[in-house]
Amino acid sequence: MAGLQLGAKDSGSAGVHRGVAVLDFILRLVAIIATLASAIAMGTTNESLPFFTQFIRFRAKYNDLPTFTFFVAANSIVSAYLVLSLALSISHIVRSGAQKSRVVLIFFDTAMLALLSAGASAAAAIVYLAHKGNTRTNWFAICQQFNSFCERISGSLIGSFGGIVVFIILILMSAVTLSRRH
Amino acid sequence: MAGLQLGAKDSGSAGVHRGVAVLDFILRLVAIIATLASAIAMGTTNESLPFFTQFIRFRAKYNDLPTFTFFVAANSIVSAYLVLSLALSISHIVRSGAQKSRVVLIFFDTAMLALLSAGASAAAAIVYLAHKGNTRTNWFAICQQFNSFCERISGSLIGSFGGIVVFIILILMSAVTLSRRH
Repeated sequence: MAGLQLGAKDSGSAGVHRGVAVLDFILRLVAIIATLASAIAMGTTNESLPFFTQFIRFRAKYNDLPTFTFFVAANSIVSAYLVLSLALSISHIVRSGAQKSRVVLIFFDTAMLALLSAGASAAAAIVYLAHKGNTRTNWFAICQQFNSFCERISGSLIGSFGGIVVFIILILMSAVTLSRRH
Repeated sequence: MAGLQLGAKDSGSAGVHRGVAVLDFILRLVAIIATLASAIAMGTTNESLPFFTQFIRFRAKYNDLPTFTFFVAANSIVSAYLVLSLALSISHIVRSGAQKSRVVLIFFDTAMLALLSAGASAAAAIVYLAHKGNTRTNWFAICQQFNSFCERISGSLIGSFGGIVVFIILILMSAVTLSRRH
């Protein structure tokens, strides 16, 4: 009788775990799209101004600023990691009792969260400077000249910050699953 | 016999858990010192140049740049959170079987990791700019003039990045403990 009850509880909890695993898979897909979109939006940013002198053409590209190069690299690495992590995520849908692989996922998710949030906020700091400038240091806002460039780099931050939120949810879900097992 | 073996295994695993909980407590103390030192080092940065005109004194303070204000705020919030989290950490040393409070800790640790890494890397992006400048955007390096200011702001990043590493280890340790319980 006790064995039967335990069995019923186990299968119910396995069902919950499977649901969480499916949600984990979907959230990873969302994060892949978000970070990939960020990387592509930033990586293809390129504006040439309609006027130019004999010697200089006024062009703005994302890799004029090293921080934006880091942003593209961080987003690409995170989205590549997410694609690889889908394999483990699928294995959790099939084998809902897995523990070690969940710990591995939490560890890498945490490291990738740190990388993504580093890239996103470093870029955000520079984007803020491009918009507002800073009078004390004589860094002037460049967004008056490079209007569409600035819109593009501001927009590309959204995907990254979305990805950060998804990562926090993913880590929370993994921790809850680990604590509820059996 | 089986019951005895189980009991022995349980008490062995409780010992390991207690050791991990003590390590967790120590790491939190390290992180408090690191983030607090970062906040104070940045927050007290202030350089007046020895020459001044009749109207302008050349001064550099951390809050001339909003990013550094964010850095100080982020580090202060994280170190205040860490002080509060010591209470839960101590309760884990006493009651090594606790699960829900560990999940709560993982969640907040993750959120604080994201905040700390955002503050640290945004500040790092600006520090890099202060050192190197950027010719394409006409943002000039300010470190020639404000030498000790620049040394100070660069140094204050160290504590923050140390704190990030400690947070990743803390989250990993909590995850391992959750997976090994029973």
